[in-house]
Amino acid sequence: MKEVLVIGIGAGDPDHLTLQAVKAIAAADVFFVLDKGSGEGPEAHDLTRLRRDVIRTHAREPYRLVEARDPERDRTGDAYTEAVEDWRSRRADVYERLILDDLGDTETGAILVWGDPSLYDSTLAVLEDVLARGSARFGHTVIPGVSSVSALAARHRVSLTRVARPLHITTGRRLARAIADGTDRPGEPDEAGDVVVMLDAHCAFADIPGDADIDIYWGAYLGTPDEILISGRVGDVAERIRSTRAEARARKGWIMDTYLLRRAPEAGGRGGVRRV
Amino acid sequence: MKEVLVIGIGAGDPDHLTLQAVKAIAAADVFFVLDKGSGEGPEAHDLTRLRRDVIRTHAREPYRLVEARDPERDRTGDAYTEAVEDWRSRRADVYERLILDDLGDTETGAILVWGDPSLYDSTLAVLEDVLARGSARFGHTVIPGVSSVSALAARHRVSLTRVARPLHITTGRRLARAIADGTDRPGEPDEAGDVVVMLDAHCAFADIPGDADIDIYWGAYLGTPDEILISGRVGDVAERIRSTRAEARARKGWIMDTYLLRRAPEAGGRGGVRRV
Repeated sequence: MKEVLVIGIGAGDPDHLTLQAVKAIAAADVFFVLDKGSGEGPEAHDLTRLRRDVIRTHAREPYRLVEARDPERDRTGDAYTEAVEDWRSRRADVYERLILDDLGDTETGAILVWGDPSLYDSTLAVLEDVLARGSARFGHTVIPGVSSVSALAARHRVSLTRVARPLHITTGRRLARAIADGTDRPGEPDEAGDVVVMLDAHCAFADIPGDADIDIYWGAYLGTPDEILISGRVGDVAERIRSTRAEARARKGWIMDTYLLRRAPEAGGRGGVRRV
Repeated sequence: MKEVLVIGIGAGDPDHLTLQAVKAIAAADVFFVLDKGSGEGPEAHDLTRLRRDVIRTHAREPYRLVEARDPERDRTGDAYTEAVEDWRSRRADVYERLILDDLGDTETGAILVWGDPSLYDSTLAVLEDVLARGSARFGHTVIPGVSSVSALAARHRVSLTRVARPLHITTGRRLARAIADGTDRPGEPDEAGDVVVMLDAHCAFADIPGDADIDIYWGAYLGTPDEILISGRVGDVAERIRSTRAEARARKGWIMDTYLLRRAPEAGGRGGVRRV
């Protein structure tokens, strides 16, 4: 039986790898690497290089590295969910072909995933899609990893949760919409909580009213030598984060960042961030 | 300067340790272990043993193991948050004394934390409390770990997030209250989402209406040889989870479990789980 390992490799620091991930990498015969293509610029280059370093360090020789072109995602339209689902379906085409053509009947293939495979990563859904098609037959195993959310909290030395309180993990897109809609709910103090925001390309945090009693803990390139951390009252540091982010993005050609928004527990005023 | 390392050691599998955690354990001169005392039964025994195994495997000799009695938490009253805060303050007394008396001026002390230190763990808040008192001076560093949430998702091979959707992490207590209050919000379809529930000693999931279009992915003793996984439509499997959980808890003397609730995206009916 063919076996596919989906391996979380942590948030950017090669030492985020777990012993389980190290063993899984050493057990793989083939590594499948989806590459954005040379035209895609420095992000693809840096991240692909980091991933290759991990493979080179921990793989058991001889191993094969099979690269395929990652399908392009339509970023032009408004239909975000549909665009992502179309992209996933084309990714499934790629993985189906790789598993059919490049993985021997008793071989183990590995797919390395940044952070943890369970948070805003499409690999598991794509493999389910491939399995549902029925042509490629394989078992699969998931190796959990250190998520960028855990890495963010660790670097800021904060807990994501407070006693008896929930944590909400959401996207920049949803946060922006909630701020624009004013979907703050003054009647529900329990809602005031802690929110981690991922995939925020447009700095939605900068639109939070400046007088809101909310702290932000922001981090970019977590776990790498380029790591940047900024924290403080959101009204005090939002502009600094925005300019730092723009400068770093211009310099490196790409950025990956995430942040925690934490409302002061005693704050009763409006302008806060609730669950969005 | 004294240094304290707060090290996430993963959800129960010794191979969940990251390379960073392995290095941090090897860098420690002293390990601080809070023990619930021999009167506290098998949970304390099993978990303390697992932690000692991790230390024995990765610590650099010679090292010291300093054990202290973990303060008891008042579990009798209704004032959960106050009881936890009182407990934290007494834990801070213990750590303050350990850092003052048992950590040399240039030594490194380590505290091992199950899962990831940022999720429903008090260690970071306790250390902040100790620092705020001003008597013990030390630097501290946090090593992120594989959370039980990531381990749960990996073992069920599911993603916690769906395209453009949020994830909510909450407690059994809050879920129970939301079900009892009927705080489902039929007017807000976007709210129907994915909820991870932790610290649920009373099987709040069993009170979800049986006809709700919700799947549950439940796991206990994740990452250990005793691991149990059950998933399915909540109305179909809730009783099986409850009886399995009760039987396992009676047999082993303790249980640690968590679960994901996932509403079918197209479901419009009531009885669901929203953000609680």
